[in-house]
Amino acid sequence: MDNFSPTRNYAQSLDQTDPLGPFRARFSHPQPSLRYMDGNSLGKLPLKTLDVMEKAVRDQWGRELIRGWNQGWWEAPQRIGDKIGQLVGAAPDQVVLCDSTSVNLFKLVNTALLLKPERKKIISDTLNFPSDLYILQGIMHTLQKGHTLQLVSSQDDDLTPDISALIDAIDENTALVTLSHVVFKSGYLYDMAEITRRAHEAGALVLWDLSHSAGVFPVELDACEADLAIGCTYKYLNGGPGAPAFLYINHRLQEQAVSPIWGWAGQDKPFNFDLAYTPAPGIRRFVAGTPHVLSSLAVDSGVDISLEAGMPAIREKSIRMTEYFIRLSDALLTEYQFRVGSPREARLRGGHVSLRHPEGYRINRALIDEMEVIPDFREPDNIRFGFAPLYTSYEEIWETVERLRVVMSEKRYTHYSEAKATVT
Amino acid sequence: MDNFSPTRNYAQSLDQTDPLGPFRARFSHPQPSLRYMDGNSLGKLPLKTLDVMEKAVRDQWGRELIRGWNQGWWEAPQRIGDKIGQLVGAAPDQVVLCDSTSVNLFKLVNTALLLKPERKKIISDTLNFPSDLYILQGIMHTLQKGHTLQLVSSQDDDLTPDISALIDAIDENTALVTLSHVVFKSGYLYDMAEITRRAHEAGALVLWDLSHSAGVFPVELDACEADLAIGCTYKYLNGGPGAPAFLYINHRLQEQAVSPIWGWAGQDKPFNFDLAYTPAPGIRRFVAGTPHVLSSLAVDSGVDISLEAGMPAIREKSIRMTEYFIRLSDALLTEYQFRVGSPREARLRGGHVSLRHPEGYRINRALIDEMEVIPDFREPDNIRFGFAPLYTSYEEIWETVERLRVVMSEKRYTHYSEAKATVT
Repeated sequence: MDNFSPTRNYAQSLDQTDPLGPFRARFSHPQPSLRYMDGNSLGKLPLKTLDVMEKAVRDQWGRELIRGWNQGWWEAPQRIGDKIGQLVGAAPDQVVLCDSTSVNLFKLVNTALLLKPERKKIISDTLNFPSDLYILQGIMHTLQKGHTLQLVSSQDDDLTPDISALIDAIDENTALVTLSHVVFKSGYLYDMAEITRRAHEAGALVLWDLSHSAGVFPVELDACEADLAIGCTYKYLNGGPGAPAFLYINHRLQEQAVSPIWGWAGQDKPFNFDLAYTPAPGIRRFVAGTPHVLSSLAVDSGVDISLEAGMPAIREKSIRMTEYFIRLSDALLTEYQFRVGSPREARLRGGHVSLRHPEGYRINRALIDEMEVIPDFREPDNIRFGFAPLYTSYEEIWETVERLRVVMSEKRYTHYSEAKATVT
Repeated sequence: MDNFSPTRNYAQSLDQTDPLGPFRARFSHPQPSLRYMDGNSLGKLPLKTLDVMEKAVRDQWGRELIRGWNQGWWEAPQRIGDKIGQLVGAAPDQVVLCDSTSVNLFKLVNTALLLKPERKKIISDTLNFPSDLYILQGIMHTLQKGHTLQLVSSQDDDLTPDISALIDAIDENTALVTLSHVVFKSGYLYDMAEITRRAHEAGALVLWDLSHSAGVFPVELDACEADLAIGCTYKYLNGGPGAPAFLYINHRLQEQAVSPIWGWAGQDKPFNFDLAYTPAPGIRRFVAGTPHVLSSLAVDSGVDISLEAGMPAIREKSIRMTEYFIRLSDALLTEYQFRVGSPREARLRGGHVSLRHPEGYRINRALIDEMEVIPDFREPDNIRFGFAPLYTSYEEIWETVERLRVVMSEKRYTHYSEAKATVT
């Protein structure tokens, strides 16, 4: 990006040489003037998913009825799980698609505590996704009252973790360290290998939430010797609203790992209907109840597209897009008091960038309501811009920053009230 | 059915006067020669669901993207939950659609134990759905080691509960009694009001699994003063394979009820992203993670059809169909050693009927593979025939018994091996 220029022409030249450019046509763009910068919250619809879902409903459910379970439904959690595994650096038989991220986190935190019964502390930090912190709090409050949750504070900027404080907190009483791999507000990317190594040195397990990295960063779970992981599939994996989530358990832990939720889909011989539970071998035992077939099949095509594009190419474009956005912001928005809330160093940054502004909430509303730009807002002052390497174009990014400039120069945000936050 | 006759003509006359007959046209029947007797495992596809799903995928996800959450997705668990509530006798704000039956059972069993901390016993029986027993076993084994599960044996026939033994087992140390409302093998229907009353007399809570009664029997949760309930939506509610399940918590318990899974979708103000969890008021707190939108919306149309038909008419036809099937079996299959495994008294019977036969497994296979009849088989000797009042016709029932008669008279089952059980 040595010849960077804050012009539409330059954006178009980047698009022309973008090796992932052709993948944009795999997705639905029914509102061409919309600049969708929220693929980090809900990814776009792969066109193939339209067909997959119609067939799943009309032909599989409608025609095959109960026979569908013998024709692939039952195996879907593992089949799709293995494909997700390829995207997050996990060899086969370590990932399953099932339940929600929250339910999977609930399972695996309990699994970790059962694996380390003598240790009574869980460590996380204030940058972990609040949903994850709620699950941890619920476990401590209801089922594991002898345990404590130690929440390490972030640095003063509220967007960057305090890694040394985090590592110092891990001690011989620590059962589990659990973190979001990429911070949902700032996009800060943790060093998975290093933190996992330090946790292991202290005898603790590590559980990574990959919701903001799976599909945009080449996660290397096996190579990092990660213990446990969860993640959602509706962000960069384009699996659809509320798509089932995934969970990972490293091979070396699977023999001893016990789920607290003994569902029949994780039973060894579920169709024998025995009265006593015998866990299925391996990762299958962590599938709990009946798989959500329709939502699961919707995940399939999005994952396939990511596999076809390949994580190295996806990461390369992701870095270029976030860097391009930051340079554009520096060039076009200098006079408007924005602060880049994300790391400027690419190796510390995931797939989205936060711009901080005291009027962030209202600016975000103006972008959505008046400018056909969809970022999202996170308290207190973060406007998040997510870039999906498979379908976001550089020209869209240029237009986003240009429209943001218009909102600021014309003060288009001032008539919005500081209303209650909604999803976008 | 005073003029009963085991003829096709008589079946046709029943169809002609069937007030629910017109509802059959609301469902997809792409294989007209198929006699589908497994709607108690997976209900048929409502035609409207095809449209609903196409719109959900193409227009809502594809076009609205993240904005869909502000256009009904977020409220779907409660909106659809309230409609299911109407089918199971629950006033509004007591039912939510979320997660799987197993995960919901896991939540509510823990909720019950938290509500009765001084009591250490859970009571169920050997006729409870094995999946439910697995969840109970998992809870005892991993998280609630101080508790015990007392499993009351069924009567010698293995299909009828021992109600007096069950009631005798409930004592001052019993936190929870949990049962399947309709036995999955025999279709035996428990007296919800009476058992709930007896449990309450002993100070215990009751949790009913409505998977085999919701949508086929007019459950009266509020009138029975039930405490807790769960149920699936893919059987008689026709919600699709692995559709999200529902859970019920009686109003009077909601203030104190605590879920062990503190998901962000049950947080009071989820979009504030506060670090500390504050439960949403009422039933909403039991929605855990992000709702499975696509699978949830598929549930909507099936529930609507049941509401339109009305539970009294559905139950009336259900009784007539099961009675008709039993009379046909008595008339046409006398020489083939079948035993009716379901109660002959209508008030004790749910929506399906079991025929027991030593060769049940192979007979079931022959029906499926050679006769275009789909019942299912449950060990050791039950062939289950499920009748869905919304779309099963009397003529289909007649043809089912007639084809079964052919299988027996021509010994068409003898060349099947006693292979491992599959879903059907």
